[in-house]
Amino acid sequence: MERDIFLNISPLDSRYYKSNRELMELLADYLSENSVIRYEVLVEGAIITVMEKYGTVPGGSARIMKKACQSITPEEVYEEEEKTRHNIRALVNVLQRKVSPRLAPFIHLSATSEDITGTAQALRMRDVFYRVVIPLCVKLMRILTDIGMKEAHTAQIGRTHGQHAVPVTVGFLFAGYADRFGGRLVKIAGAVKDLRGKISGAVGAYNAGSLIFEDPRKFEEDVLGELGLKPANFSSQIVEPEYMLDLMHAVVSAFGVLAQIGDDMRHLQRTEISEMGEKFEKGQVGSSTMPHKRNPWNFEHVKSMWKEYAPRMVTRYLDQISEHQRDLTNSASNRFTVEIITAFTLSVDRLVRQLPKILIDRVNLEKNIKTADGMFLAEPLYILLAVKGRPDAHEVVKRAALQAQKEGRGLFDVVEKDDAFREITMLDSWKKLSQNPAAYIGLAEKRAAEIAGYWQDVIRGIEKECNAFGETENG
Amino acid sequence: MERDIFLNISPLDSRYYKSNRELMELLADYLSENSVIRYEVLVEGAIITVMEKYGTVPGGSARIMKKACQSITPEEVYEEEEKTRHNIRALVNVLQRKVSPRLAPFIHLSATSEDITGTAQALRMRDVFYRVVIPLCVKLMRILTDIGMKEAHTAQIGRTHGQHAVPVTVGFLFAGYADRFGGRLVKIAGAVKDLRGKISGAVGAYNAGSLIFEDPRKFEEDVLGELGLKPANFSSQIVEPEYMLDLMHAVVSAFGVLAQIGDDMRHLQRTEISEMGEKFEKGQVGSSTMPHKRNPWNFEHVKSMWKEYAPRMVTRYLDQISEHQRDLTNSASNRFTVEIITAFTLSVDRLVRQLPKILIDRVNLEKNIKTADGMFLAEPLYILLAVKGRPDAHEVVKRAALQAQKEGRGLFDVVEKDDAFREITMLDSWKKLSQNPAAYIGLAEKRAAEIAGYWQDVIRGIEKECNAFGETENG
Amino acid sequence: MERDIFLNISPLDSRYYKSNRELMELLADYLSENSVIRYEVLVEGAIITVMEKYGTVPGGSARIMKKACQSITPEEVYEEEEKTRHNIRALVNVLQRKVSPRLAPFIHLSATSEDITGTAQALRMRDVFYRVVIPLCVKLMRILTDIGMKEAHTAQIGRTHGQHAVPVTVGFLFAGYADRFGGRLVKIAGAVKDLRGKISGAVGAYNAGSLIFEDPRKFEEDVLGELGLKPANFSSQIVEPEYMLDLMHAVVSAFGVLAQIGDDMRHLQRTEISEMGEKFEKGQVGSSTMPHKRNPWNFEHVKSMWKEYAPRMVTRYLDQISEHQRDLTNSASNRFTVEIITAFTLSVDRLVRQLPKILIDRVNLEKNIKTADGMFLAEPLYILLAVKGRPDAHEVVKRAALQAQKEGRGLFDVVEKDDAFREITMLDSWKKLSQNPAAYIGLAEKRAAEIAGYWQDVIRGIEKECNAFGETENG
Amino acid sequence: MERDIFLNISPLDSRYYKSNRELMELLADYLSENSVIRYEVLVEGAIITVMEKYGTVPGGSARIMKKACQSITPEEVYEEEEKTRHNIRALVNVLQRKVSPRLAPFIHLSATSEDITGTAQALRMRDVFYRVVIPLCVKLMRILTDIGMKEAHTAQIGRTHGQHAVPVTVGFLFAGYADRFGGRLVKIAGAVKDLRGKISGAVGAYNAGSLIFEDPRKFEEDVLGELGLKPANFSSQIVEPEYMLDLMHAVVSAFGVLAQIGDDMRHLQRTEISEMGEKFEKGQVGSSTMPHKRNPWNFEHVKSMWKEYAPRMVTRYLDQISEHQRDLTNSASNRFTVEIITAFTLSVDRLVRQLPKILIDRVNLEKNIKTADGMFLAEPLYILLAVKGRPDAHEVVKRAALQAQKEGRGLFDVVEKDDAFREITMLDSWKKLSQNPAAYIGLAEKRAAEIAGYWQDVIRGIEKECNAFGETENG
Repeated sequence: MERDIFLNISPLDSRYYKSNRELMELLADYLSENSVIRYEVLVEGAIITVMEKYGTVPGGSARIMKKACQSITPEEVYEEEEKTRHNIRALVNVLQRKVSPRLAPFIHLSATSEDITGTAQALRMRDVFYRVVIPLCVKLMRILTDIGMKEAHTAQIGRTHGQHAVPVTVGFLFAGYADRFGGRLVKIAGAVKDLRGKISGAVGAYNAGSLIFEDPRKFEEDVLGELGLKPANFSSQIVEPEYMLDLMHAVVSAFGVLAQIGDDMRHLQRTEISEMGEKFEKGQVGSSTMPHKRNPWNFEHVKSMWKEYAPRMVTRYLDQISEHQRDLTNSASNRFTVEIITAFTLSVDRLVRQLPKILIDRVNLEKNIKTADGMFLAEPLYILLAVKGRPDAHEVVKRAALQAQKEGRGLFDVVEKDDAFREITMLDSWKKLSQNPAAYIGLAEKRAAEIAGYWQDVIRGIEKECNAFGETENG
Repeated sequence: MERDIFLNISPLDSRYYKSNRELMELLADYLSENSVIRYEVLVEGAIITVMEKYGTVPGGSARIMKKACQSITPEEVYEEEEKTRHNIRALVNVLQRKVSPRLAPFIHLSATSEDITGTAQALRMRDVFYRVVIPLCVKLMRILTDIGMKEAHTAQIGRTHGQHAVPVTVGFLFAGYADRFGGRLVKIAGAVKDLRGKISGAVGAYNAGSLIFEDPRKFEEDVLGELGLKPANFSSQIVEPEYMLDLMHAVVSAFGVLAQIGDDMRHLQRTEISEMGEKFEKGQVGSSTMPHKRNPWNFEHVKSMWKEYAPRMVTRYLDQISEHQRDLTNSASNRFTVEIITAFTLSVDRLVRQLPKILIDRVNLEKNIKTADGMFLAEPLYILLAVKGRPDAHEVVKRAALQAQKEGRGLFDVVEKDDAFREITMLDSWKKLSQNPAAYIGLAEKRAAEIAGYWQDVIRGIEKECNAFGETENG
Repeated sequence: MERDIFLNISPLDSRYYKSNRELMELLADYLSENSVIRYEVLVEGAIITVMEKYGTVPGGSARIMKKACQSITPEEVYEEEEKTRHNIRALVNVLQRKVSPRLAPFIHLSATSEDITGTAQALRMRDVFYRVVIPLCVKLMRILTDIGMKEAHTAQIGRTHGQHAVPVTVGFLFAGYADRFGGRLVKIAGAVKDLRGKISGAVGAYNAGSLIFEDPRKFEEDVLGELGLKPANFSSQIVEPEYMLDLMHAVVSAFGVLAQIGDDMRHLQRTEISEMGEKFEKGQVGSSTMPHKRNPWNFEHVKSMWKEYAPRMVTRYLDQISEHQRDLTNSASNRFTVEIITAFTLSVDRLVRQLPKILIDRVNLEKNIKTADGMFLAEPLYILLAVKGRPDAHEVVKRAALQAQKEGRGLFDVVEKDDAFREITMLDSWKKLSQNPAAYIGLAEKRAAEIAGYWQDVIRGIEKECNAFGETENG
Repeated sequence: MERDIFLNISPLDSRYYKSNRELMELLADYLSENSVIRYEVLVEGAIITVMEKYGTVPGGSARIMKKACQSITPEEVYEEEEKTRHNIRALVNVLQRKVSPRLAPFIHLSATSEDITGTAQALRMRDVFYRVVIPLCVKLMRILTDIGMKEAHTAQIGRTHGQHAVPVTVGFLFAGYADRFGGRLVKIAGAVKDLRGKISGAVGAYNAGSLIFEDPRKFEEDVLGELGLKPANFSSQIVEPEYMLDLMHAVVSAFGVLAQIGDDMRHLQRTEISEMGEKFEKGQVGSSTMPHKRNPWNFEHVKSMWKEYAPRMVTRYLDQISEHQRDLTNSASNRFTVEIITAFTLSVDRLVRQLPKILIDRVNLEKNIKTADGMFLAEPLYILLAVKGRPDAHEVVKRAALQAQKEGRGLFDVVEKDDAFREITMLDSWKKLSQNPAAYIGLAEKRAAEIAGYWQDVIRGIEKECNAFGETENG
């Protein structure tokens, strides 16, 4: 059923589809309603495959079923659903018509709808993460760690509370992003690996299965094994929601790191700071009325998407509760989790496209670090004075700093002329710093390289796992 | 640009579009990306119209502009945006090409993008609420008040904490829904009426407008007046977010009342209660494996949608903050407000379709009220005893009730045989109640009718307003 | 029961109590558990008062009841609750013991617990808002409008997307805050005025009341009238939650405006911007290790409090649902709404204390506006060029701006030497702007004064209302 | 500073303190402001200890420091903070006064405030979880698994959508709770073990430390090692927020399982269902006006607390973002995380106190399972018919079920008289079920025991870990 995308309601399906069509098509393979049905029939197929192995259905049934499954369309199912008002019964009815009357009654037999939809959801999630989301996250990690390495030595004033603190390096900043996003990626991969399915029937107690199979728990393991999944340790009508919940937490918290990057980048692009800049494309317009404007709109966009999607985590927590063996009040809401994953993936992709083109303005980095004439050396001054045994070192230096600010004299000048600091001014370490305050970066360079290097190893491992998964499934 | 709806990501644009196509098409007229552009050109058009009145542009310009506006398509704009990376500049460029070089430079002149998008959003919201959402809410109010009237006298056991309390009536229950939803509807209508636009330029200070117009604030009023809107009392680059925020609060809190109705109905349909029931359509299936099941899935659906959408209100609160004269981190997120309105409207519609068909099981209503043998008459017993001056009335009755429960004797029996109640048992009021406990409904019947009647008046007024709006706009 | 405040769990009751003791004591009069009980007895008292008027209880009862009410302590009630496990029954038991056996049975008669707690909550809210919260908000409005007036003419570069846009004035910025916060204050006052009580009994149908009073709805009106309240149009066991919900929306959205102010102020205090500054008190320390630091910590604090409290609005939406005539799952959660009100009031107070001391750095304001050599005149340049009929004015100016940026020449220089702008450079308006770019403020000065003036009128009205309320209640 | 608890604002510090004083006192040892300061001095102490080992400070310093730390009081610190307006500088000043002038300058040297507060928070969290929270969760697990074991065979009708589905057992229900809560407990324990500290200075780059120590990263490891912690892989001014975030996710998601239990229990206590019941204590009152009421208020309370606290997770996600090397907008908000942990622990404790006393009403369990005369055997009927090869088995049985419902005949009667089922009625499996429908529990009994047994092993391990931790720390 075709329709103009600009008539869609969700910006994901119109504006953001249009602006990143290739990625959206990839995601649709796993996250669209079409994919829902495609994966559901995989589960119905696996049931028949195992039944054939068990001798419950005649030899050849699996092959026939596979063919039936491949020929099914969402349109057929939705048409049938208009009668049944039940999506899985509709699916089963359609499938039954596509096979022999001999096989038909065994389709879906002993399963409840949620055996199919819950398991199919786990499969779709696993596949989209291994094939699309994680590989894209790996790309982002590569970019972050590359900048971490390359700019490990590029001094930048550190900022706390929006105020100049003491220096770091650009590489250290990005190594930090890499470390945080890397940690999240490991959580995502872990949660994906722990997704579970179920074939335990209407209330999870294998009631129906017990009528057909000697060991219905083993039947469940075998069916899920066909699909590369394990059963939930416990299930009612539904798989315990916590497996998916942990994945969504990993995703939403990873989204938070993207928002951090977006937010930092847009602030570093402020007119007064201008240390970083989004690349401005040929022909691009910053403002419809102010021709001189260059806005950090891609970074602003990432933060805006996060603002839209992070609060949706609340719904995931609400959906933990399902009365008794289940009520359906988590059914519609659960369908919308795909929106979060889509928005997250689009945001990763936006950073993957923007960060490699980011302009690092070395002139302004240097200029900013020189603002206020090395005032931040107040910290090493205090440290050195304290090491010398001066109990009121902090107070003494604070007074000197205030005096310098008040009289507009620069900290060095005050320090040189104040007896309190005589001993300090003769120290080599102080002399070096006063000649080049930007050198006060501590271990920033070293740590940037170490952290970036650590994560480059880790992501190679994750990448291998994704590739291995791809081969198995396609083999 | 056509695409299979089943490839869309958002369930709104696939599953829920499919299941309520007519309403979704209506909503798309105001809430789709297509409508965004359609309304934006209306604003650009109004600017030229007023400029013509002012003599800023030659006579006939408004007519030419109108034609240009009508011929624009989202495809053109998006194609241009690939160059400009700026949606409104793209729109302006396309419009400029469609008019004479003489008129072209005046298009959008003195406006900033948000003058267009913010104003267009207010217009779309106003229109969709007056034409689609509010009329549908009025329908729901009619249904709720009708049941309130018709079932004003139908006794039903009241339940607090899931425990039998004292009786109400079915009409009283629905009058309560009507009162709560009616209150919300009045809030929605009020917030819609107070939506504002702006034509105050890049930072809201009419900087550019001051170069062209003597009184740019009046120009703003005139342009917005053309569109039936008023300017915000203050604006920066953007209209103050609180106008839309109040509307969204009204919508989300109205959604909460729908969820209350859905939740109550599904509990009243519990196997053990069975006082209400969703109509089961011919051919409908309750469970894919349990052929006997009849689930309250439509009511469950409404609650589930609410769970998905209510937490999204957090994003609206987050979007109140926009740095200085504005940052763009509320741009993408703001686009998603249409999803909440769509989900709310779909949920109103679902109740509009389900509630008139609801089965009210009078046998079970009566049966349930008789459960435990009039134990709830413990309340009037206590009241009557207290009125007689017995200080420990509550304690005495509690003991009697416990005794009745423990010995399985029924409250009447205990009361009759206990001297403490001799005086009471001779009262007419007690005799009546003990013969017909279901008569202990207080003012439930009267109030149900009064409240329902009150709201039937109010909604007639709201409906008139909607109709009047329709006529003006289409006239 | 006394306890060290530093052993409390909530930072409100330890750290923030300590740092603003006077205000916290005031709030405790209405928002503490102690106040809960104090207000509950007011409601029980009003019931007896009206009963005396009706002749249901003997003359003099109201006076006796009042005395009993005044002598009650939370300790007594909590001790009794250990037996009853029911807070209102405990309260009633304690009261009964304090009056004659003749009056005792009539205490609370026909009321359900929620008649007392729900009504008492409305009263406490009304009182705390009229007496503490709104007067404090009025103070903040006075400060905002004062700065709006005083600094109406002080030019400041406008910023969108963190980029220099075109100028506004400091007064215009603050007039904007005043307008937004003023709008919220009006909503708060409106919601407070619409708070409702109920005396409609266990399920809201006046079942018990019908046994005692001829017109129990009138009895409800009379009791609530004694307390200065109106009954909810409808109630079940509880007052419809939407009255309080609207108030909480008004509060949380007003909190958002505080967060906006806090956020703007802290960004304007960034080292590189330094247009505003928190006053640094004598002895104050900015950092434990960096003696030169001066952090905008009060403004950061306001935003941080908002981050903690705004999401709690979700609970208020969740609490709209209460099964059938009520379940208790909104009981504990409802108790926590006082935390939001406390945090909001503390944040208003913090701004009331900080904003009058804010440092407006006129040197930096001027310096920043001069950054980039009037590049923002690209906007008026484009406007003037377009008015002259140049269809590609935006593009032409964008090129000139890029050229100026690239060649580091300043916009004026490029403009003067480019034939395209010859006509413009001869315009008086352009000449004026090029001599004083900071004059490009449009109506900023005028609007700042108008808006500030408007709100000064409004708040005088609100203040009068608060005073009038104070007199009535204390009279 | 002593104050009446009933004057506190937060219900945690008044009502809920009063109702569970012992547990609240325990929690205050780790979660109060008092504990904040107590743990902060531990970190300052560890710094001196390692400095002594390194020879940076004279021998004996650690001992002197320890004494100083033990004598500090919150009052002193708060008094000093009134001057410094900086909590950690105040703490350091107070400590410095308590030691010799020789040691004084080394206190806090090279550390930034967040080195102390961030590390102290990790310590407090670790300790409160190992010593209070996890042991209490273990108790709850023991109760859940005990019921899972003991009631493994007790048949209960399964319910989906509030409708009777097919049977499970009470033990199976509780085994499910155990499995879900157990999974969360494992997550909690894992997150606690992964909490990190930092001693990396003002911007995380060891700038100051580099002036004093050869290897400041090693110094950090040694200081944290003293406290039993590891450093964050990366830190800016603050520890990466994701370590705490994961813990809070684990806690909030565990809270969701408590809410599930509370919700199920209160529904199972509905008058019409009455399968479970909260124990009613002697003297307890259910309603202030309805003496017969017995409300599941403890279970309602747990759900209500969850509604208040789960949405607060949003703030934790918002706090992931801290500009550049840090802004303070996560400072106040971060202080409130202790409220979530307190509410969670109180809720665990409430279930620990209530669940062992829960009344399992075997009569009603049996009665409910018999409702509708074995209608749920429609499922096995359909399965058996399908296994016999009937392709339209589901449809045939649905018709039979509808007929039975319509004609009020009972499913067995219809089945017996309908030729379609002749073959089935002769099967042993059907005969057994029709004689005892409650036997249709599948593997419920077996799985209940297996799952409960599995978790009893796991929690023994967790308990050992807690004990081992206790010994190390106290040894």
